[in-house]
Amino acid sequence: MIRQEELRISTSGRGTYDISNKVQQAVASSGIVTGLCHIFIRHTSASLILCENADPAVMVDLETFMQHHVPDGDPMFTHTAEGPDDMPAHVRSILTQSDLNVPVTAGRCALGTWQGIYLWEHRVAPHHRKVTLTITGE
Amino acid sequence: MIRQEELRISTSGRGTYDISNKVQQAVASSGIVTGLCHIFIRHTSASLILCENADPAVMVDLETFMQHHVPDGDPMFTHTAEGPDDMPAHVRSILTQSDLNVPVTAGRCALGTWQGIYLWEHRVAPHHRKVTLTITGE
Amino acid sequence: MIRQEELRISTSGRGTYDISNKVQQAVASSGIVTGLCHIFIRHTSASLILCENADPAVMVDLETFMQHHVPDGDPMFTHTAEGPDDMPAHVRSILTQSDLNVPVTAGRCALGTWQGIYLWEHRVAPHHRKVTLTITGE
Repeated sequence: MIRQEELRISTSGRGTYDISNKVQQAVASSGIVTGLCHIFIRHTSASLILCENADPAVMVDLETFMQHHVPDGDPMFTHTAEGPDDMPAHVRSILTQSDLNVPVTAGRCALGTWQGIYLWEHRVAPHHRKVTLTITGE
Repeated sequence: MIRQEELRISTSGRGTYDISNKVQQAVASSGIVTGLCHIFIRHTSASLILCENADPAVMVDLETFMQHHVPDGDPMFTHTAEGPDDMPAHVRSILTQSDLNVPVTAGRCALGTWQGIYLWEHRVAPHHRKVTLTITGE
Repeated sequence: MIRQEELRISTSGRGTYDISNKVQQAVASSGIVTGLCHIFIRHTSASLILCENADPAVMVDLETFMQHHVPDGDPMFTHTAEGPDDMPAHVRSILTQSDLNVPVTAGRCALGTWQGIYLWEHRVAPHHRKVTLTITGE
């Protein structure tokens, strides 16, 4: 059985957005009990991560880390058509994930206790992001 | 056909652990000949990688690289509840993989000659880690 | 339905190679309309990325970024049997992807407007690379 649907996520700019509930709702609606839920972002300046979902300081520190290692406006970058955060957004996407697969067990994404599914907006300005879910199984 | 099972991996602390044989055994037991083997770690401070399996120096160098770029106790991090290796473990996980998919061909994971499947423990202390395998195919 | 095939990609050395068309052709030939296309590289010194496909400067900047953070001949590395680009190639592979999954919708990889699928050769010398495609769905 295969179910495919698109999530639309509006971001308010750079930062992480917990999409775990939206994904879990799609899995529940699919009727699939055992299988996999594939999550795909159709952009190259926003990405996906699985990360600790309890302490908001983790997300602050992730931003700090990326801003330190992939700083906006770094003069090493020449692809700057859309501004100082343009190329850093591509690099941040490359260093994280464009797609994730999560096991479906007993009709739910079988995440670990502390795992959440996040969309990471790397552009400073708000964006509308499309995420394709493909849920397969029995 | 879908087969799902959980591996339990006990680590003795930071370092890489070759789980290729355990995964190959699960694929062999599944009876699936052509398809995919999905490997998922249910934690945010340990991760998965595919890496060169011949020279142990590669694993030493990977540790050196991470300790250089994501040092324990870096004062840029505020999420330190579990110690100086807490936030670095999350960053290392983000920069590597929480899930891998490997093709199954002729009843085996069709890895390249030099590819091994590794669990990378990022915490200094020993941990018990859960890895979910989902093997699909014909 | 499952279709598996191998692509052979000859590289002329370090750099990115757009394999989107080859992957789309395989998906079209498979007859699968809705599902997933899994792309797997059977090597540990070349990797896969999804990246912006419009401005060639993006690929130049990605190389610059990697050469800055994972420089060839870095004295921190001890695995140098195949030369100064040996261990950096493994690190670059670890920091990017060995496998990607892309949704198949209406008989095509449903990439975003600006997304291309690239093989990233991390070794300086030309290599022959094997990529396994596993296309599943209905």
